[in-house]
Parts: sequence; C-alpha cells; structure tokens
Amino acid sequence: MDYLFDKVTAPNADFELLARQKQAQLTKPQGSLGMLEEIAVRLSAMQQTQTPKIEKVWVSVFAADHGIAAENVSAFPQAVSVEMVKNFAAGGAAVNVLSRHVHADFEVIDVGLLQTLTLKNIVTDKSAQGTANFSHQAAMTVPQLNHALTAGKNAVKRAQAHQAQLFIGGEMGIANTSSASAIACALLKQSPNALTGAGTGLNSEAIAHKAQVIEHALKLHQQQLDNPLKVLQFLGGFEIAALVGAYIFAAQQQLPVLVDGFIATAAALVAITINREVQDWLIYAHQSEEKGHQQILQALNAKPLLNLAMRLGEASGAVVAVPLLQMACKLHNEMATFKQAHITTE
Amino acid sequence: MDYLFDKVTAPNADFELLARQKQAQLTKPQGSLGMLEEIAVRLSAMQQTQTPKIEKVWVSVFAADHGIAAENVSAFPQAVSVEMVKNFAAGGAAVNVLSRHVHADFEVIDVGLLQTLTLKNIVTDKSAQGTANFSHQAAMTVPQLNHALTAGKNAVKRAQAHQAQLFIGGEMGIANTSSASAIACALLKQSPNALTGAGTGLNSEAIAHKAQVIEHALKLHQQQLDNPLKVLQFLGGFEIAALVGAYIFAAQQQLPVLVDGFIATAAALVAITINREVQDWLIYAHQSEEKGHQQILQALNAKPLLNLAMRLGEASGAVVAVPLLQMACKLHNEMATFKQAHITTE
Repeated sequence: MDYLFDKVTAPNADFELLARQKQAQLTKPQGSLGMLEEIAVRLSAMQQTQTPKIEKVWVSVFAADHGIAAENVSAFPQAVSVEMVKNFAAGGAAVNVLSRHVHADFEVIDVGLLQTLTLKNIVTDKSAQGTANFSHQAAMTVPQLNHALTAGKNAVKRAQAHQAQLFIGGEMGIANTSSASAIACALLKQSPNALTGAGTGLNSEAIAHKAQVIEHALKLHQQQLDNPLKVLQFLGGFEIAALVGAYIFAAQQQLPVLVDGFIATAAALVAITINREVQDWLIYAHQSEEKGHQQILQALNAKPLLNLAMRLGEASGAVVAVPLLQMACKLHNEMATFKQAHITTE
Repeated sequence: MDYLFDKVTAPNADFELLARQKQAQLTKPQGSLGMLEEIAVRLSAMQQTQTPKIEKVWVSVFAADHGIAAENVSAFPQAVSVEMVKNFAAGGAAVNVLSRHVHADFEVIDVGLLQTLTLKNIVTDKSAQGTANFSHQAAMTVPQLNHALTAGKNAVKRAQAHQAQLFIGGEMGIANTSSASAIACALLKQSPNALTGAGTGLNSEAIAHKAQVIEHALKLHQQQLDNPLKVLQFLGGFEIAALVGAYIFAAQQQLPVLVDGFIATAAALVAITINREVQDWLIYAHQSEEKGHQQILQALNAKPLLNLAMRLGEASGAVVAVPLLQMACKLHNEMATFKQAHITTE
C-alpha cells in the first residue's frame, strides 16, 4: 500500500500558461467558451503539450458484491450485480453503448462478485466473494483491501499499455451507494440523513431505513475510522477501493482521469484524503441526481461539466462527458487566431 | 408572411408512448438516464419512429449588421461582423471546428451584412446592408422583415434537401445582443436592466449605457410594439428574423430544432409568440452566461441540456450539445432490455 503515498507531480505550469495565452488569441471573445476553455487549459498542462488530445479513452468498470445488501438497502436484489456484469460482457448496458459511441476501450473487472464468471470479456482480479456486512463487522480485511486497491492500479496499467489519454473508472454492485454514503459521512463528518439517497430507486421510507443502517454502522466502527484507509476497509466496497487505487496511480502516472457520479466521487474523496495532489488530475464529469453527490462535490471544490439528472453509475455519466473534452481540445487546436483571420480586436 | 400562422402538427403521441414503454424495459433503473431519456422520447415522437436517429445535422449561421452598433453598445467594432463571416467561410471559427467534430453540414448566410462578400462558401440572401438604428427608427421595413423571415425558411429547405434530421440555427452580428434584449423586454414586459448583459465583453458601466439605449428605444416605439412581428420589425436584426422564420417553418415541416443561446432563444420566443405550437419542436441546447438568458428560458418553460458558461453564439452551444442527442438515441436503440439480458427486476 506504500505506493498510495508516493509523490504526485503537478500538471505543467508552463504549458498551462501557453494554453491560456493561446485561448486569448482565438477568434472569440475571451472566456466565451466557458468551461471548455478551462478543460483545454488543464489538459494542455496535464499532457504537457500545446495540442491536447483525447482520442484514446479507457473505461474500466469494477464490479463487486456487498454484505450490506442483507440489510435491505437496495431496490434491486443482489443477484443483479452478476447479471449486470454479464450484460456488460455482452455489450448491452448503457456504458457499452456510450463507449462504442466515443470509440473508448471498455473492460469490466470482477473485483469481488459473489459468483465468479468465466466469460471471456470479464477480467477477474479478486480476493473474496463479496464484502462482509459492514453493519456487523469490517467490510474487508487488510489483505482484501490491498488486493482491491491493486486491482485498480492494474486497470490503469492496462489503460497505459493501450496508450490511453484518459482514464474513466466505473462501478457496479448492488448496495454500493450505502457504502459510498457511509464513507462520505465518515470523511466529511456529516450525518447519514444528509448524504443518503434513493440509489437504484428506494422510496422515502426505505431511504430512512438505509440512513439508519449507515448511522448504526458508523457508531459501531467509530473508534476505527481515524484515517481514510481504515474508512475504506471498514465501510468500503471492493469496487470503491479499486477506484481509489486507480485514481491515485493514474495521478502518479500523469494520466488524466474523468470521474463519474456519486460512488466514483466518494472514491475520489478517499483518494484525495490519502494523497492531496491527486485532485490535480481529476476532471469531474457530471452532477448526479443521487442525494449527497452535490455535497461531496462541494467539499472537493469540484465543478462538474454536466448536470443531466443522471443517476446510473457504471461510468455512464463520465462517458457522456467525453465529447466535451474532445471538442475542448479541437477548439484549442483548430480555431483560427485573430491574427490568422485578420480580425480587428480593438 | 401568412405561412407563419400555418398549423404546426404535434409530435406523435403514439410513438411517444411506445418510447416511454421501451425506456422502462432497458437495463437501468427507471429514469436513471435523466434528460437523455426525455430527449430520446421526444425525438421518437418527432421522428415518428421507434428508433430515433440524429445522424444528419444541419447548421445555418445567419449574419447581419445592426444600425444600433452606432450607439456604442458592443465591445467589438462593427467591422468584425464581416471579418467573422470570412472566418466562418474559411473554417476557422468555433462553430466550424465543432461542426466538423459532429460531422454536421455547415453554411453561413449573409442576410444583411454591410458589405457583400463574394466568397464561394457564403450564401447571400439579403434585402439590405444592415438594419437602421432602432434607437431612432424602425430597424427594418416590412418588405425587409419578410425577406429575412424567408431567408430562414430557405435555409430549412436546404437542410431538408440534404435529409437533415436536426436543424441548428446560429447568428453573427456585432450589436445583436442589444436587439435580442430589446425584443425580449418588449415581449416579456421586463426592464432592460433585467435582460441586458455583457455581450462580447462590456464592463458594467457600458452595460448600463446599453440598457439605457434599449430603454430609450422601447419608449420611442412603444405604440408600435403590440404584436410579435412588429416587435421583430422595429427592434430586430435580420439574422434574428431569419431564425424566427427558420424555427416556424422547421416546426411546420416536423423537423426537430436545437436552439442555441441568448439570441437564438430570443428568436424562439418571437416564433412561439407568433405560433404557440412551434415550441413542441424546439430542444434547448444550453444556458448561456449572457444575462437575461435564464429569464427567457424560464418564460418558455425550457430546460436546457448544458450549462458550460458559454457565451459565444454562432450556434456553438447547440453544436456542443449534438453528441448528447446522438447518445440519447443510441441508448434508446441499442441497450438490452431486462428480458433480453435475463435480469431480475423484483
């Protein structure tokens, strides 16, 4: 786990300055491309180039089961985790359709499903069949936590082997919003009522029950939750730990990351709490409808690109934002300057 | 002008219902794709199909000059209108880069520039060299208004001849936010202070001056501004009138329209005030940074897809939103159903 604390290099300030100067010369009022200008500047600094590009996109969806599902905290039965992974492998899920649209490389990784599948399109990188029920005990052991973090690191290595210019992590796992809410409550010192939402579609009564389960668990483990790795071990899911490992390693490798919704942002919160400079490498794709996401984003001072009332997870919101990054780069690279276009500027 | 009041057929309710039923069967929690679901349902109803598609996109940018520019209401000199049209013709503007990214057909139409250019990539469809200064007199004559409205209709006909599945209109014309603000104030009975913004980059003092110019003009013409066509004639720009004509004719032809930012939305307001049912065929792409846009959107009960702090015009915000429509269609058409994927739903 030592690599988690290794230095993260900041995006290059010289290329950031060059990019800002370039933006000021393009044939448009200064600032009129809004967040697309900021994205182009950040990607220039991250990629250390005057011509940033997002042509090779890598999507890793981590899937796992959750002991906490026994507490009736999800609108869908636990069997759906495995069934949806089969759907990912067959190309029928939302993230598959979206990945095809943006020509992204896509993989799904079993980091802890109850059932181990032997389909050729599934990467298996697991140490257990589901987490323990964190309302009774720690969700995972320390070796299990390490395995899941490393599974995330391994995914980034595969992305790099395919020359990815952007890493996107997603998740699937029935009951994993409970885990994400519990983690966010522990790290942000907020109450479960503030950060617990409908997940796949609970009614208000069921949401109140889910918040009570989380409240109980936070009390049970409160003596242990004194650092982010302990929070992850006691309350986490394997797919959330994999996202944490992936985000930190991607930042250390200077690979830009596009963060998905509620659960991915909870993982980003853990990653940044472990290693502050990781934040410089994260771009937030969208604000989800899931209650609590907005608060976590605010705590991270994150301004997401999209707000489409999505709440699906599985990296879908992040992949929807990919064209924005691609267009931001192309505008930066291909627009004429005032001088080239002979345009009067005063 | 009689065609403006011709009947607009509503999008097909049967295909809307079929689309909603299909969305409920796809492998995701109901509603979890948020606005992308709504877009897929609306496009199904508009295109009268179970498999909506946005593969052929048409972008018409209308350009004209404005007599009101003499009142010092813009941060850029009037010469920039023509210079930017040359930039569009050469492919160097933001909208060119974006149109190439989404493989849209692009054209720029001179509907009233001060100078008539003879470049092969410019359509010329004009009756005058710029509008009159509306702080002194009506911006255009009735025949000029008719010509500009018809120029918009002509653009939609060209789009149809190219089998367009989506029409996008954009605008260019130094000082045209003054015209759009004045129109919106007249139709929404709001004060210029509420609906006048920075345009291409005025400071607060200059914005106050611009609002005063508009206030003066509204008082001067107040006896005449009793219907939307008079508002357009007295306060409009030729490119705004062309957008109005295009939006109404596109709706009559059952061609979906993606509306750009502040000026385009002011044109949509005129179009809908003339012919209420036009609204069923308009999709709003983004909320611009320009002050007043939010109020016009609210008056139209419009919920735009994006909010990227853009304020460029020239159809740029609309073209940025095209991939969202394309992805919404593909999700609708290509995702597996629960039954196909053998997923437990209760």
